[in-house]
Amino acid sequence: MSRIPEAPLFPMGEEFINDNFSGAVWLNMLIPLGSDLPVANVTFEPGCRNSWHEHMGGQVLLVTNGRGYYQEWGQPARELRPGDVVQIPAHAKHWHGAAKDSWFSHIAIEIHPEKGPATWLEPVSDDIYDALA
Amino acid sequence: MSRIPEAPLFPMGEEFINDNFSGAVWLNMLIPLGSDLPVANVTFEPGCRNSWHEHMGGQVLLVTNGRGYYQEWGQPARELRPGDVVQIPAHAKHWHGAAKDSWFSHIAIEIHPEKGPATWLEPVSDDIYDALA
Repeated sequence: MSRIPEAPLFPMGEEFINDNFSGAVWLNMLIPLGSDLPVANVTFEPGCRNSWHEHMGGQVLLVTNGRGYYQEWGQPARELRPGDVVQIPAHAKHWHGAAKDSWFSHIAIEIHPEKGPATWLEPVSDDIYDALA
Repeated sequence: MSRIPEAPLFPMGEEFINDNFSGAVWLNMLIPLGSDLPVANVTFEPGCRNSWHEHMGGQVLLVTNGRGYYQEWGQPARELRPGDVVQIPAHAKHWHGAAKDSWFSHIAIEIHPEKGPATWLEPVSDDIYDALA
């Protein structure tokens, strides 16, 4: 397992205890919830990913550290590295998270958060995750 | 003058020819204009800053490379380094840009862009800029 990034671009913040992630994750609200444009920095330990979920208005991810994946339901997974950008459509079922051997951090910005919270679904199966390169 | 960053986090994109900047600036729309949430990566050459301006809905800046400044009218300038976050209030007159001796890049996300375009005002005077540390 790789070490915690020594110098992540944005501070990791606090560990985020949440049933929708398969392992340890850290959440730092760079712009607080309740603002017109909340902005989160999310850091996944190696092997950690979130469950399948959907956003009412979509979401933008900006990758800042490490290596990870983004996958939409029925599509191949996309490998992500620093500088990659993901535009997640509204109501698209998807997951994101770290590679097995790498920490992974991204900025996450929900689009039209006033449309309501994300809908959380089933965990990503080991079959799907273990098949990634 | 420092060199162009060898490995900026997000690609610099194209040089942006615009009268509202005092020098060379590069713009890369990570999420295109016209989207619900346009996201820009902006890179300033050393010494380059934009003119005083205001956003109808405010703006968020996420600093990714180099060293620069953010200043609101009537307030002291704030030095910015990678990992710093600026939440610019709606209708606040302000400028941002690079330090004299450093390239500077930030992500810029306009809040409620549907409220209308930014209002561009006078350039930042040399007196103000040259007084920065």
